[in-house]
Amino acid sequence: MRAGPSQEEIRRQNLGALLRFVHVRGQISRAELTSELGLNRSTIGALTADLAGVGLVSEEAPRETGRAGRPSLVVRPSSELVYVYAASVEVDRIRVARVGLGGVILDQREAARPRGEAIEAVRPIADFIAAMAATVDPEARCIGAGIAVCGLVRRDDGLVRLGPHLGWLDEPLGHALQDRVPELLPQVTVGNVADLCALAEHTRGVAVGCDNIIYVYGDVGVGAGIIAGGRRVTGHGGYGGEVGHMVVNPHGRSCGCGSRGCWETEIGEYALLRAAGRDGEGRIQGAEAILAVVDAAARGDATAQAAVRQVGDWLGFGVANLVNIFNPELVIFGGTLRDVYLAAAAQVRSRLNSISLPATREHVRLRTPKLGRDAALIGAAELAFENLLADPLG
Amino acid sequence: MRAGPSQEEIRRQNLGALLRFVHVRGQISRAELTSELGLNRSTIGALTADLAGVGLVSEEAPRETGRAGRPSLVVRPSSELVYVYAASVEVDRIRVARVGLGGVILDQREAARPRGEAIEAVRPIADFIAAMAATVDPEARCIGAGIAVCGLVRRDDGLVRLGPHLGWLDEPLGHALQDRVPELLPQVTVGNVADLCALAEHTRGVAVGCDNIIYVYGDVGVGAGIIAGGRRVTGHGGYGGEVGHMVVNPHGRSCGCGSRGCWETEIGEYALLRAAGRDGEGRIQGAEAILAVVDAAARGDATAQAAVRQVGDWLGFGVANLVNIFNPELVIFGGTLRDVYLAAAAQVRSRLNSISLPATREHVRLRTPKLGRDAALIGAAELAFENLLADPLG
Repeated sequence: MRAGPSQEEIRRQNLGALLRFVHVRGQISRAELTSELGLNRSTIGALTADLAGVGLVSEEAPRETGRAGRPSLVVRPSSELVYVYAASVEVDRIRVARVGLGGVILDQREAARPRGEAIEAVRPIADFIAAMAATVDPEARCIGAGIAVCGLVRRDDGLVRLGPHLGWLDEPLGHALQDRVPELLPQVTVGNVADLCALAEHTRGVAVGCDNIIYVYGDVGVGAGIIAGGRRVTGHGGYGGEVGHMVVNPHGRSCGCGSRGCWETEIGEYALLRAAGRDGEGRIQGAEAILAVVDAAARGDATAQAAVRQVGDWLGFGVANLVNIFNPELVIFGGTLRDVYLAAAAQVRSRLNSISLPATREHVRLRTPKLGRDAALIGAAELAFENLLADPLG
Repeated sequence: MRAGPSQEEIRRQNLGALLRFVHVRGQISRAELTSELGLNRSTIGALTADLAGVGLVSEEAPRETGRAGRPSLVVRPSSELVYVYAASVEVDRIRVARVGLGGVILDQREAARPRGEAIEAVRPIADFIAAMAATVDPEARCIGAGIAVCGLVRRDDGLVRLGPHLGWLDEPLGHALQDRVPELLPQVTVGNVADLCALAEHTRGVAVGCDNIIYVYGDVGVGAGIIAGGRRVTGHGGYGGEVGHMVVNPHGRSCGCGSRGCWETEIGEYALLRAAGRDGEGRIQGAEAILAVVDAAARGDATAQAAVRQVGDWLGFGVANLVNIFNPELVIFGGTLRDVYLAAAAQVRSRLNSISLPATREHVRLRTPKLGRDAALIGAAELAFENLLADPLG
């Protein structure tokens, strides 16, 4: 029941809408902005001048169009001059990127994740940031940093309440990074990896234009990023989307969370490796091991084929539950679930069709991510850009 | 990426915000409106005059306050002069109310639901509406009608795609009512009963001020109304919230939907009656039968107690899944699940605590509805008022 906005709020909304447009769509003419945003030419001119004045966008004449008349100026995001740092803390890896306005990855590094608490994970991130910062144009402006992490993140302050596969409990990841390189980072925001992959695919990937999506992210753990009605569903404290701990098999295996038969125990990496007889000591793990099973199945290995079918069945089973709950238009399979889905698409679709209601599933498309492994970094960057886009001159 | 609003849009937003405020909170002084809406006195005065001019609100001097100075005028919703019809189509009953602006039930009737298609259900609704209309002040204005129905409703046109316990498939409920009394109803909107109970409790009930809620509605069937981040989660076509068909027990009973082990098969009315040995031919059914089991359990009947515990366990089990997915602050148990929850609250909480993650459940409260059986009608009325509140002078 908020009242309508004041003049100052309207200007802020208009500046944000224009900057977001340029950030998401890339360079665009003033004429197109006029029609896309439904504002008149003089307003677009004034807003663009304001944004250009603080270096967020630049304007220039377009290449020769061959048409008569004065061509409309082209507005571009200042990707080289306005940037954020994005990091992804995964079970095995740490990845860091510098991402310019417009979502351009300008620099990217990665390393094995040091075992231990957040303060250990933060060390290589801070080192990478410092190394990247040394190469940046002194005129350029850092907006902040975003971190994607495979854990439950408290929205208010970025505390990682639980990162089961990192061995973390109540780790202040955001504060740890900011404390380490305070001079380089005006702010640090932390989000769950599945949420941020969903955000990335919704902004720049396979889910552009889709308002109801579920991004199921799986590696050792499983979680979902959910967008409903165009908005992220993250719950009261920020912990929503823990679909990996939806119990699907009450008589199933014990889960690390203390419960039994969680979806994660049936579709996580360990489940596939166990079903394929490849879960012993000293075996390869992670994405490489999953790909090995999928490849073996494709080459005709019966054990691997049975394992892929079994996990595919459970994958479809849980997706059917989520489709009944959310009636999405798109389900995206990310992390190593991408490869499992591709190898078991028939099982997944068959389960979905037999379990979910016809109306809830009728328009749902099953897809793999467009942004691949970059999704977490792109999503973390979007998180870091959010305040700027809400109030570009603030 | 919409641009900020035009002057005309702002005026519409302000009128809508003021009218919604009065509609939801009831009578309020201009002075309070000024501070609540953050608008200045002259703007509030002008907006109120506009709304009073078309009869949506009235203004009058307050009772003597005993304080010095000119007292602020009190603004009231015109409940007697601006109203909607609200109907609820349940398995056994049809209920109809006339609801005034401000959410006041002015008149209410009910009847047994005639078996058969939507056109049969619409007959008593139309008759009640005609009878109520005959009693209405000729100056009064009907905004439309809202219908709550236990089925999957297509958002775009109110087609009931599936109403399993009504025996309905693709029934044009909204159109059928409008065709029957076109002179009385400018528009008819249809929604799922659980969605509308959630809307009602969020607007006027136990969930006021809570942005993340799950309303689990159960009778023979089970569904949920979900509000996330303050907005209704209804999915791509409007079919979201079908939690009754979340499979919780893969080796469980066949469900009417064609699947097996759906939550509904473990917590719906039939499940409790079966567990209590009261599901034979000629037995009482519905709310009365559920209450009889709950009463028997309270009086010490061991079979009834075991049945209540068993259903309570499954109730908690499914709620735990939903809590992991949505991280809500409130779960409300409506329909006959209200009585089951009250009788088995310990089981529900125990299962919730053992299955859901500590972070996702830590702030969740379990509650019964405040609006009771009126929730569906109040929610249907809110649906019918929505267009008016979005654009009061439109």
